[in-house]
Amino acid sequence: MAQLLTPAEISTQAAALTGWSVDGATLKWEHRFADFLAAMKFVNALVEPAEQMGHHPDIFISYNRVVITLTTHDAGGLTQKDFDLAQRISQLL
Amino acid sequence: MAQLLTPAEISTQAAALTGWSVDGATLKWEHRFADFLAAMKFVNALVEPAEQMGHHPDIFISYNRVVITLTTHDAGGLTQKDFDLAQRISQLL
Repeated sequence: MAQLLTPAEISTQAAALTGWSVDGATLKWEHRFADFLAAMKFVNALVEPAEQMGHHPDIFISYNRVVITLTTHDAGGLTQKDFDLAQRISQLL
Repeated sequence: MAQLLTPAEISTQAAALTGWSVDGATLKWEHRFADFLAAMKFVNALVEPAEQMGHHPDIFISYNRVVITLTTHDAGGLTQKDFDLAQRISQLL
């Protein structure tokens, strides 16, 4: 099982990400695309990385807006898996 | 602009839908699929009907769980467009 990161590790890793914020025990990211189809295209692009990593983001789609929330449910908070997936998702933009 | 339905019209139409509930000014639907890929396949199947109807659901995906929320933002509540889209989404299952 993935180990929970310490608050210091979370701060350091969060500072290295662009567009993500720590929100309680989660990492959050929000972006507005041109329209619904562009938003869906982005969401579809993250399916393969998520499957490969065996780690799945919570995804909210409201027309052109996408909100991604990451946490490691079985560890009860943020682990390295969340930061690795956040990095991969950022690279899809 | 689509007209708001009356509470009586909402009750009648909601009773004719399977799996949807009225939640304030929205229609809500939730379903658990086999896994993330099955959930994403369903979400992709609703893209074309939503685009055709010019009406877009709010979509929440958490691994195998999909929550759909419908409302007509510019009318400030439920209109015929929401019930028509709910019907179409139900038929995708």
